[in-house]
Amino acid sequence: MKSVKNIVILGSTGSIGISALDIIDRQADRFQVVGLVAGGNVGKIGEQIRKYKPKIVALFDESAVKEVRRTCSLKGVKILAGIDGIIEAATIPESDFVVSAIVGAAGLLPTISAVNAGKDIGLANKEALVMAGEIVMEAARKKKVKIIPVDSEHSAIYQSLSGAPSKSVKKLILTASGGAFRNLPKDEMENIKPEEALKHPNWNMGNKITIDSSTMMNKGLEVIEAKWLFDMDPDNIEVLIHPQSIIHSMVEFVDTSIIGQLGLPDMRVPISYALNLGERVSSSLGSVDFSRIKSLTFESPDFDKFPCLTYAYEAIRKGGSVPAVLNAANEVAVHSFINGEIGFTGIARTVKEVIDLHSRYTIKNISDALKADQWGRSAARERISEIKNN
Amino acid sequence: MKSVKNIVILGSTGSIGISALDIIDRQADRFQVVGLVAGGNVGKIGEQIRKYKPKIVALFDESAVKEVRRTCSLKGVKILAGIDGIIEAATIPESDFVVSAIVGAAGLLPTISAVNAGKDIGLANKEALVMAGEIVMEAARKKKVKIIPVDSEHSAIYQSLSGAPSKSVKKLILTASGGAFRNLPKDEMENIKPEEALKHPNWNMGNKITIDSSTMMNKGLEVIEAKWLFDMDPDNIEVLIHPQSIIHSMVEFVDTSIIGQLGLPDMRVPISYALNLGERVSSSLGSVDFSRIKSLTFESPDFDKFPCLTYAYEAIRKGGSVPAVLNAANEVAVHSFINGEIGFTGIARTVKEVIDLHSRYTIKNISDALKADQWGRSAARERISEIKNN
Repeated sequence: MKSVKNIVILGSTGSIGISALDIIDRQADRFQVVGLVAGGNVGKIGEQIRKYKPKIVALFDESAVKEVRRTCSLKGVKILAGIDGIIEAATIPESDFVVSAIVGAAGLLPTISAVNAGKDIGLANKEALVMAGEIVMEAARKKKVKIIPVDSEHSAIYQSLSGAPSKSVKKLILTASGGAFRNLPKDEMENIKPEEALKHPNWNMGNKITIDSSTMMNKGLEVIEAKWLFDMDPDNIEVLIHPQSIIHSMVEFVDTSIIGQLGLPDMRVPISYALNLGERVSSSLGSVDFSRIKSLTFESPDFDKFPCLTYAYEAIRKGGSVPAVLNAANEVAVHSFINGEIGFTGIARTVKEVIDLHSRYTIKNISDALKADQWGRSAARERISEIKNN
Repeated sequence: MKSVKNIVILGSTGSIGISALDIIDRQADRFQVVGLVAGGNVGKIGEQIRKYKPKIVALFDESAVKEVRRTCSLKGVKILAGIDGIIEAATIPESDFVVSAIVGAAGLLPTISAVNAGKDIGLANKEALVMAGEIVMEAARKKKVKIIPVDSEHSAIYQSLSGAPSKSVKKLILTASGGAFRNLPKDEMENIKPEEALKHPNWNMGNKITIDSSTMMNKGLEVIEAKWLFDMDPDNIEVLIHPQSIIHSMVEFVDTSIIGQLGLPDMRVPISYALNLGERVSSSLGSVDFSRIKSLTFESPDFDKFPCLTYAYEAIRKGGSVPAVLNAANEVAVHSFINGEIGFTGIARTVKEVIDLHSRYTIKNISDALKADQWGRSAARERISEIKNN
């Protein structure tokens, strides 16, 4: 008899969470949902509670909790609110595996808590590593916890490495679709409207990541994430524009041989791989038909047109508190862009100005990382209100 | 202290043999040449004897042996002639690893002898598996011998599998450059001259393989080889035309994820990988620059224009003696084409007619395989002399 794995999903109503639940449905003999964490989407979490009957549910939005308790109070389902509830859900003794798919800095505390509780992690939340990579990876080593990336690029690298020793690796090649504005002339970038930036050519993702993809900050954060996940010098992490998003990323080894992972752009493939700890489970998802695709193309990224990518490389080279500040400033700026407070190029400008203002310090613990995050947010908000008042 | 591995090269003056010696020169602290086997290229083998001072040398061409003995008799180098000498070289107790790179059916006996003597094998000779795949693989299992493919496609698959269980594999995707006549209209195929067919767009190989590449019989033989190496049903081995020869082959797993191996077309990469039993040794060979390559293209093979590919699939589906007969008829036909005895399309026609004449039987041992080879050769010679006399 196969043993059933108990799963907690942090971010269950988001794009990754929904894909993870789809995989769990398809492989129902392998998994059981024991915990769900979401923001405040009452309708969606209610549906999920009724369907999966988890032991524990926690919501960021405390006001949504009452509504959920009222509309779908089920016997045996504990419904909690706020960060304490979320951490309780991330660490319940009944779980074997935690899908970390909260978007943004809010994912850090639940993720590190799950690691410290000895849970294997399917990591989609980039920020845990961007803000506190050294601490999260060290905790994972200590607790012998597997951190399996869910991001398509990092999953591709993880699959391509297939356990190869890091001394055999020459470089990682992170592919990037190039986002919605790959072909837009640079001088038209400042006129980009939020609704234009919210359309992604290949992937269906949440708003924050779609905007990050259009500024290429998403790729910058992925470079930082890759540094920690695979213990690589950022100089040996290359970004390659590949608009078709079929090659999800590659590893070049010291013998010049390159191993890459390919597939249709479907997050369910890396999610299944992570949930099954690298075991390949048969699926009816679509596969690549190369004779129909006909051509895969490549180009170098335009660092000039996408300065966020440069800032991310600079941040990880400086290290310490700088990546957390970069990420915080970016989150605030993206939010302001979506709300029409700043223009598209204002995102990169805000990030740059905040980083230039920041005095780097060492991140010795999670609280240092959260402090850097707070500092970055305030500094960004200040800069943005200055722009608005000018 | 690193232990030095003792190497025997079967086919040392051919294209693969020379590349293997280049890798051995580059990694001189890891390898020592203890045996060389060649045809009858007196000049080249003489050079190699003087440079590597192997314990044993054997030549197919008995008349060349005298000349070699006369021109480079070195103390401690045993120089032998004919198949008995070659088998002695393939099995000397001093060797740890045998590079099997004799071209054609002549490679079978030395290869199986090396396997039975417990030597790990770097396999470039396709015919050992085409003619007697079941017997060679069974002997390797019994003797706990590693057979590591040297062919770029099979090395790519071996690297992409990275030890994955065969139940996790959905299909193998063997890429093919498409040969010199990919874009030639079908009705011009019969006018192809030997000198046109001897030019390969990407790889620098010997004459026999270059012609096989232009008829796509080479890919057909590779399908048969892949069946045995990776224990795959031929229905799950797909051929994909990829003219740039950058993706050397791929594996699609049951979860729809595809792993592929990429690199510049340079046989030294898979040779180094095989010689080092999968360890990746740092090299100064060129690596792929994707932003310069710009585009990788794909198309389905044209089975109608390249009937040899169809015949190879049919042969491995029928199994038994048929693949050995296919291979033998093809060797004779290619030889006759190079000598101007038959036209280009006569190669496929000869193969087809010989296979249609053949009554399949089971290959129970190497002698059965050699008998099928002999039968295929005679039948092909007969057919060709009939064509010539018409």
